[in-house]
Amino acid sequence: MAPPTLRVLGIDPGGFVSGWGLVRQSGNKLVLEDAGTIRPKRDDEFPKRLCALHARLSEILAQQQPDVVAVESVFFSQHPRAALQLGHVRGVLLLAAAQKELEIFEYPPATVKKAVTGNGRASKEQVRQMVAMLLGAEIKGAADKSDALAVAICHAQSGSFLSKIKHLDPGPRRRRSQPRGKQ
Amino acid sequence: MAPPTLRVLGIDPGGFVSGWGLVRQSGNKLVLEDAGTIRPKRDDEFPKRLCALHARLSEILAQQQPDVVAVESVFFSQHPRAALQLGHVRGVLLLAAAQKELEIFEYPPATVKKAVTGNGRASKEQVRQMVAMLLGAEIKGAADKSDALAVAICHAQSGSFLSKIKHLDPGPRRRRSQPRGKQ
Repeated sequence: MAPPTLRVLGIDPGGFVSGWGLVRQSGNKLVLEDAGTIRPKRDDEFPKRLCALHARLSEILAQQQPDVVAVESVFFSQHPRAALQLGHVRGVLLLAAAQKELEIFEYPPATVKKAVTGNGRASKEQVRQMVAMLLGAEIKGAADKSDALAVAICHAQSGSFLSKIKHLDPGPRRRRSQPRGKQ
Repeated sequence: MAPPTLRVLGIDPGGFVSGWGLVRQSGNKLVLEDAGTIRPKRDDEFPKRLCALHARLSEILAQQQPDVVAVESVFFSQHPRAALQLGHVRGVLLLAAAQKELEIFEYPPATVKKAVTGNGRASKEQVRQMVAMLLGAEIKGAADKSDALAVAICHAQSGSFLSKIKHLDPGPRRRRSQPRGKQ
C-alpha cells in the first residue's frame, strides 16, 4: 500500500515580499514540489498591492492544489505600525486560503525554526541550509522562499499524519498526482 | 443645472464588528442613504470570519455602488496584538474595495471626530448625535454605524468636490440614481 501523502503549502507573509513553498510528505519522506515569492509592485498604492497579493496566492492555490496551508504567525515584539501592515497582508493571504476552504495551521517563528534546525533562534541562513538538507534540494533566491518551506516542513513534521488535516475531506480537493484538468 | 453628486461609503473596521454607512453629497447637502454593520459569527475560526467579512462588504459595494470609499485609519497607541487583528480585518475590507477599483481615502480617528463634532477627542455618543444632526436622521443601533457615517461625512466635507475623486471615471461605476440592472 502506498504511504499516505500530504501536500503542505507553507506561507511566509511579509510587508513587501511574501514567500510560498510546497512540500509533499509521503510517509517519512519530504519532497520539494515548488516554491516562489509574491512581490506586488512597490510603487502601487497599498490596496492595489493587497489585490495583487490576493490574486497571486489564489492562482497558486488553484494551480498547486495543496491539502493544507501552514502560515507563520506573528512575533509580537514588533512595532504596532509594522504589525498592522503585516496584519493587512496576512488578512488577504488567509482570506485566499479560506475562500478555497483549505485548513489553515499557524506556527510561531520560533517553533518553525526549532522544528527545522533544532534552534528557535536560528538565523535565516541556517534555516535555508537545513531546509535544503531536509528536502535534498538547493533553495536559491530570497530567504522568503526557504522561510515558507520551513513552515511547511514544520507542519509536516508535527503530530500524527491525520492530525494534520483537521477534517478529512475526500471531496473536491484534487491531488496533484491526479492528471490535471481531467476530473 | 443639478449640483454634482458624490456617494461616499464610510467604513469603520473592527475586530468583531465593522460598520458601514453611505452618505450622498449633493452640493452642500448631505443625505443618509443607508448604514449597517457586518458581524461575522464569533464562533467561526478567524479565516472564516475574514471570508464572511469580505463577502459581505463585496455584496454591499455591489448593491450600493458608491463613488468612493473612506476608511478610518488606525490609532497607533494600540497593543500590537490588537493592531495585528485589526490589520487582518482592514486588509480584507480594503481588498474588497480595491477589487471593485474604488478609490480609497483614509482618515485618522481624531480627524474624523474633529470634522464631525469640532473636537478630535469627542465621545462615540457625541459623534452619533452630530452625525444624526448633520444627516437629519436618527442613527439607531451600534456605534459602529455612526462611526462609519462619520468617516463618510469627514470625506464629504474635506477639500473641493473634485479632489474627492482622485480620477474622474465616467465608465463602469453606476450611480444609484440610474435604474438598477438596466445598463
